[in-house]
Amino acid sequence: MKLKELGEFELINLIHNLVDKSKNPEHTCWQQLLIGIGDDAAAWQGSDRIQLATTDTLVQNVHFDLSTITWEELGWKSLAVNLSDIAAMGGIPQYALISLSLPGELEVADISRFTNGMAPLAEKFGVAIVGGNLTTAPIVVITIAVTGYCQGDVLKRSGACPGEYITVTGYLGTSAAGMEMLQGKINLDAEGTQTLRQAHLQPMPRIKEGQILVQQGVKAAIDISDGLIADLDHICEVSKVNARIRWEQVPVHPVVKANFSDYQELSLHGGEDYELLFTANKNVIEKVKQDIDCPVTVIGEITEEILPSRVTIVDNKGNVIPYKKGGWEHFR
Amino acid sequence: MKLKELGEFELINLIHNLVDKSKNPEHTCWQQLLIGIGDDAAAWQGSDRIQLATTDTLVQNVHFDLSTITWEELGWKSLAVNLSDIAAMGGIPQYALISLSLPGELEVADISRFTNGMAPLAEKFGVAIVGGNLTTAPIVVITIAVTGYCQGDVLKRSGACPGEYITVTGYLGTSAAGMEMLQGKINLDAEGTQTLRQAHLQPMPRIKEGQILVQQGVKAAIDISDGLIADLDHICEVSKVNARIRWEQVPVHPVVKANFSDYQELSLHGGEDYELLFTANKNVIEKVKQDIDCPVTVIGEITEEILPSRVTIVDNKGNVIPYKKGGWEHFR
Repeated sequence: MKLKELGEFELINLIHNLVDKSKNPEHTCWQQLLIGIGDDAAAWQGSDRIQLATTDTLVQNVHFDLSTITWEELGWKSLAVNLSDIAAMGGIPQYALISLSLPGELEVADISRFTNGMAPLAEKFGVAIVGGNLTTAPIVVITIAVTGYCQGDVLKRSGACPGEYITVTGYLGTSAAGMEMLQGKINLDAEGTQTLRQAHLQPMPRIKEGQILVQQGVKAAIDISDGLIADLDHICEVSKVNARIRWEQVPVHPVVKANFSDYQELSLHGGEDYELLFTANKNVIEKVKQDIDCPVTVIGEITEEILPSRVTIVDNKGNVIPYKKGGWEHFR
Repeated sequence: MKLKELGEFELINLIHNLVDKSKNPEHTCWQQLLIGIGDDAAAWQGSDRIQLATTDTLVQNVHFDLSTITWEELGWKSLAVNLSDIAAMGGIPQYALISLSLPGELEVADISRFTNGMAPLAEKFGVAIVGGNLTTAPIVVITIAVTGYCQGDVLKRSGACPGEYITVTGYLGTSAAGMEMLQGKINLDAEGTQTLRQAHLQPMPRIKEGQILVQQGVKAAIDISDGLIADLDHICEVSKVNARIRWEQVPVHPVVKANFSDYQELSLHGGEDYELLFTANKNVIEKVKQDIDCPVTVIGEITEEILPSRVTIVDNKGNVIPYKKGGWEHFR
């Protein structure tokens, strides 16, 4: 069987199973491990707090197109997607390792721009770039690894409970709308262009917001990188629950609503918004809303697990709206 | 200017300078940082001990050829090169993140073989594979990041002092000889084939040996991945010293000596042996020799810095032997 037939998520499960089979519970590292393969970051018990580590890769012509992204934006985004994984654990990032596979024909100045694009984001969140790796390759491949820690508990994908409300930060579908705009499918005014370009190419990781979630007692969270339905499906799978989303309540940015007729499709399936999705009771959500500056929107409920369909979409009359499974999946 | 004109090491210096300019000494992560860009791994002061993190990338047709390496061997080697960086710091590895960029046409069974090839090495050194990333790509690119810690002090590239002896573990040039054999340049008997194949495709990281170096008071070390002269040059550059190597004393495996007329060239320039090179006084070296099972060989001395040539090779009469700068450098 080929990878394109199995798909990304089944391959993760396969590797997860193989690693589990080979693990030796006598080793300290396994004893201290809290969260391994299958969450936004790995977590283990350090001597005085929970430690985190995550990694993410961006591949030329898969994740980005050098004709529509500047090297500064690429630097920002490469680090941002990793910081978003730390945010989804409720953690604080610390150190970053930058691995660049690059064609020898590239201009040195572009790599300076890349580094300079990353610097303000690192500075904003107190992250130190402390190492990495440089190799020749026929295409640009960027892999960043980030370490961090939790000041209190850790947010997991597996903590969602029936009865909890599904809640998201910010707006969904903005990044996907931005990609369509960059592909030339639509022309917007300067302000709209700027909003969508930034959403797609310079997402802001929700580091502060993730920590507020932990402080207010949230247990389950994920960052929306693959798309709302796909990432909610990840939460449901490991939490062994179902989810019901009320379509009209999914928050969509005014620029997207005004300019994209398929905005609901974008908000359900469009990935790379790097907003946080979490589940909690009403009381906790009210406290979170008071502490967080960005929009915090309840979009549905967690329900008891009934397989095979984990995520259901309903309209405001409660009618089920069919959707095709979507969201980004590698190799497919 | 293009990357192929600048070369890998100058590009590292450039990125290092840009990162240094952007660092904010008020951030805790910078205050706690002990070793940043430019060593085998990054090191920072944790709450009770020194923490380490490193990353390394293997690119198809740059670092490996799928027609001469099995997927099991590729799994082993991908992890081994990272563990070797932890060994060069005198550290103990803990957690690994595996990022795989893969063509969708690959067989799923090959990725199982890859994972199974990594497992025994992880088990041997108590490393837990706890996460990573999977992406589509037109070629295979493997980036692994490993965290670890030091039980005592940390070995640095910058600690070499004039008067110290340059010492290496194991044999040099074996991996490069193995690559020539795999390229079909020479045929050997079964035992010789096995020795060289393993040296090139399944190197054994010197984790235990690195820790013995720390225990016995060694301060400066590096793992030999680019080649003896190139890696010794890295030590000299950051330690601000020169080095003199006695050609005949560089240890060469009997199989290599018997079958490769250019064995001295291989031992000086051939990379990927993943042996440790360290500097120490006679007393320390004697204690190290007693504790380490593999060959430990003094091959020269550290001298005062006289630029521009950092590394000098002499024969057993003390005559300087000219050599062309070599060793592996990306983009060149």
